Amino acid sequence: MNLQELDKTIRRIPDFPVKGILFYDITGMLANPQAFQFVIDSMIDLYKDEGIEAVAAVEARGFLIGAPFAYRLGLPLIPIRKSGKLPGVTMKASYQLEYGRAEVEVHQGDIPAGKKMLLVDDLIATGGTLAACASLLEGGGAHIQGIFGVVGLDSLPYKEALSKYPLSTLLSYTD
Amino acid sequence: MNLQELDKTIRRIPDFPVKGILFYDITGMLANPQAFQFVIDSMIDLYKDEGIEAVAAVEARGFLIGAPFAYRLGLPLIPIRKSGKLPGVTMKASYQLEYGRAEVEVHQGDIPAGKKMLLVDDLIATGGTLAACASLLEGGGAHIQGIFGVVGLDSLPYKEALSKYPLSTLLSYTD
Repeated sequence: MNLQELDKTIRRIPDFPVKGILFYDITGMLANPQAFQFVIDSMIDLYKDEGIEAVAAVEARGFLIGAPFAYRLGLPLIPIRKSGKLPGVTMKASYQLEYGRAEVEVHQGDIPAGKKMLLVDDLIATGGTLAACASLLEGGGAHIQGIFGVVGLDSLPYKEALSKYPLSTLLSYTD
Repeated sequence: MNLQELDKTIRRIPDFPVKGILFYDITGMLANPQAFQFVIDSMIDLYKDEGIEAVAAVEARGFLIGAPFAYRLGLPLIPIRKSGKLPGVTMKASYQLEYGRAEVEVHQGDIPAGKKMLLVDDLIATGGTLAACASLLEGGGAHIQGIFGVVGLDSLPYKEALSKYPLSTLLSYTD
């Protein structure tokens, strides 16, 4: 498996979820064990010398990437969820969507203050969700050592939205 | 780590999400690398001789358990999602909730016909969601070799709802 072969496992679906959006679907990657292991093993190569002490994963597809990474490295895994899903004492951050706003939430007591965290999602589009997630973790005293997405949509301004943080993606798309 | 210590990482939160429900929260287990690795490694012990050929994980918390298991064993991972999230051609199943109905969906082309599958979620309550998921996978020609939850709520009738399938949980609660 290499990046070219990984790219072939990512399906392009026009006009999903709404007309005019080209959706990149990672389910073909998940169904291909060689591709999935290549993604997780590539993340380990990228971050093994970064001193990462905990992993935050963004609901829901980020869970699929962050969980095996945290398991493999034996790191605490902190889920960042959509509003109303976490039962304990939480911190929240809201962010702008194309229409309206959305909110992400994390258990306050799970944020490892003073520790180096990796923040993980499957795909980085505008970076709005990840910027809200990063501000939540920083608000709890964590240090964002890196943000990772399997795919980055380089036609969108996520590098500006996340300019404070070291970013890595395996695949960059401009179409 | 053992089952007694694992139990201590599961938080009980009364009256969440609604009054009268005792919610079992797995985020403390996720934040404890020894506990999380114990869960995944226990699953591997349970299923290593079962000839499992693919793993289906139920959105969203099931992703956190199913993904590391599939990664570790090098098995195809098929996400079962809430309605409207998957962009390709899907199969759907609806099921009864306490009030109203809900729907789960899977990419039809990802169901491995004729293969032995493990169906994974974090917690088994009434078994309604998992019964719908199992029927979806069977409708696509897969064989359900087992259903796994970290926690089973034995005060609820999930064993009847899922009586067709071999079930395993690590922790059983009756309160």
